[in-house]
Amino acid sequence: MSKHLVIMAGGIGSRFWPMSTPQMPKQFIDITGCGRTMIQQTFDRFGGIIDIDHVWVVTSASFKDIVADQLHGINPQHILLEPCMRNTAPCVAYVSWKIQKEDPEAQIVVAPSDHLVMKVSEFKNYIKKGFDFIAKGSRILTLGIQPSRPETGYGYIEQGAMVEEGMYQLSAFKEKPDLKTAIEYIQKGTFTWNSGMFMWSADTIVNELRAYAPGIAAIMDKILPDMFTDKEQQVVNELFPTCEKISIDYAVMEKTRIAYVQPAEFGWSDLGTWGSLHTLTPHDDSDNAVIGDSVTVIESQGNMIKVPNGKRVVIQGLQNCIVSEHNDVLLICQLSQEQRIKEWHD
Amino acid sequence: MSKHLVIMAGGIGSRFWPMSTPQMPKQFIDITGCGRTMIQQTFDRFGGIIDIDHVWVVTSASFKDIVADQLHGINPQHILLEPCMRNTAPCVAYVSWKIQKEDPEAQIVVAPSDHLVMKVSEFKNYIKKGFDFIAKGSRILTLGIQPSRPETGYGYIEQGAMVEEGMYQLSAFKEKPDLKTAIEYIQKGTFTWNSGMFMWSADTIVNELRAYAPGIAAIMDKILPDMFTDKEQQVVNELFPTCEKISIDYAVMEKTRIAYVQPAEFGWSDLGTWGSLHTLTPHDDSDNAVIGDSVTVIESQGNMIKVPNGKRVVIQGLQNCIVSEHNDVLLICQLSQEQRIKEWHD
Repeated sequence: MSKHLVIMAGGIGSRFWPMSTPQMPKQFIDITGCGRTMIQQTFDRFGGIIDIDHVWVVTSASFKDIVADQLHGINPQHILLEPCMRNTAPCVAYVSWKIQKEDPEAQIVVAPSDHLVMKVSEFKNYIKKGFDFIAKGSRILTLGIQPSRPETGYGYIEQGAMVEEGMYQLSAFKEKPDLKTAIEYIQKGTFTWNSGMFMWSADTIVNELRAYAPGIAAIMDKILPDMFTDKEQQVVNELFPTCEKISIDYAVMEKTRIAYVQPAEFGWSDLGTWGSLHTLTPHDDSDNAVIGDSVTVIESQGNMIKVPNGKRVVIQGLQNCIVSEHNDVLLICQLSQEQRIKEWHD
Repeated sequence: MSKHLVIMAGGIGSRFWPMSTPQMPKQFIDITGCGRTMIQQTFDRFGGIIDIDHVWVVTSASFKDIVADQLHGINPQHILLEPCMRNTAPCVAYVSWKIQKEDPEAQIVVAPSDHLVMKVSEFKNYIKKGFDFIAKGSRILTLGIQPSRPETGYGYIEQGAMVEEGMYQLSAFKEKPDLKTAIEYIQKGTFTWNSGMFMWSADTIVNELRAYAPGIAAIMDKILPDMFTDKEQQVVNELFPTCEKISIDYAVMEKTRIAYVQPAEFGWSDLGTWGSLHTLTPHDDSDNAVIGDSVTVIESQGNMIKVPNGKRVVIQGLQNCIVSEHNDVLLICQLSQEQRIKEWHD
């Protein structure tokens, strides 16, 4: 049995405009200024566990070259191009059928391409433990993030009985709660955040999709003969759009009887907002988070500043703002108004 | 008698950083976004009065190519390069000696390169009237700007008896006053702002410099034989730095007995501050002055925004700030703190 990594990289990251654009969304950007893009960091944190030969990326056709460029050495056959967005179930199905064809013994971890993990060694331990767990039988494992606050922006996973140390039966998926409900979840202590990370064998997920998403499975069976051939993309372009638009959570996770959850804590953030980036970036004494190596900040408090390295910037007398420059587009706005950024794009 | 224009272009414009830099100061920049730089606008407003053949520029050696580029068709012999800044008297002396050598009958108007004139046809009338006035005898004429407020940032000119319609004897130069004094000047009605614009014949100013600045005159007499030769710059580089550092106001205007003032009103500004640019630029309903054709301003008041055309900028929730981007340098600061911009340069 060999281990494979599937990176889901189809997002458009519109909340981080102008840094993230439809042409170069969040996952392909070095958001934190560490020198590696989000998808590169995602790959890096599986180092020592999964070889580049066993890395798969599902993304949009327009990002093919970016993926090949950023994940140097990836097998071009492992970059799967969705002709349109059909949520996560068809995406997972496509890559699972294809992995199974190449490696019927494959064990798989699925990870979003644009999340942040700050405690990488802890992360690796959870992943290794997860692989051990799914090797013991036909099991679907999710990684649940130990919540640090009653967040209303995430879905939650309710855990049931413990089946072994650190592993629980998955009792229920919960939609994004209101604040009162979120507080109850935190108090109960049996709820974790749904991180969108899954582990399973190729056999297991293909079987579960056959059982609970037979329409999608039938389409994948039609594509299967042409996988790894010159005709693959053409057939995918034709048939993939006919898949039902449904998440893997709805299609499989809520129905399957073999779902488990491993609560985890590894300094996770989905970096979904400028505010979360502000929280996670080192601050100066005045609560300014600055990414960019040529920025001078004077008499300013609580700002999130993200500009290219080398860009000379002087900021004086600014409070609680986002200042972001990318590709010669400049945004200055109140941090509290960031949910409106989408309205301001061209 | 033919008419000559001397443009004084040695300034460094450091208050408008980052738009204005030591390498490309204010006078060589299209500050107002009209499509012409300040020195080009200065030249333009003498159109129909003075030919390009009779235009002279005194500037620093480092700006030679910029001047030649921006004032297309200027005689390269008419670009005078100061090896160092010695205030205005040596500068005026150098160009006056040189003009006199080329054209002993020359009548001259001297103008700063970085001021704004909004009523150009009125301006032309004042200049024409000024040339008529100095043609009548050995006279030095200054243009005094009718003050619109008790400004403490300018010097003032006190006028004496009227000698003909609109022309007065120059009674006194006054240093930048305190507010109380400035209010008195305004109330008296016989004070105008010193615009730094002068009109005289070459003979007159050379004679007055001989009388009141004999040291500088002696140095110019030494340079004179090499003017218009290959040796000129070498000799200037050697002798010009030995000139006393003194303004034409102190050296000549305060001593001469043939000084006159023509009070004028032609929408003048020295554009000395971001605040003055803010005042003079058209505003939106929220008092934002925007120069730049791809700027969106939302829920913001009282800002001065100056970015290159084509630069996409979104600004939300910003009050009373300067936002200036130039040559990939970005400044955001409180408009009220603009006098500190010099401190923030590299």
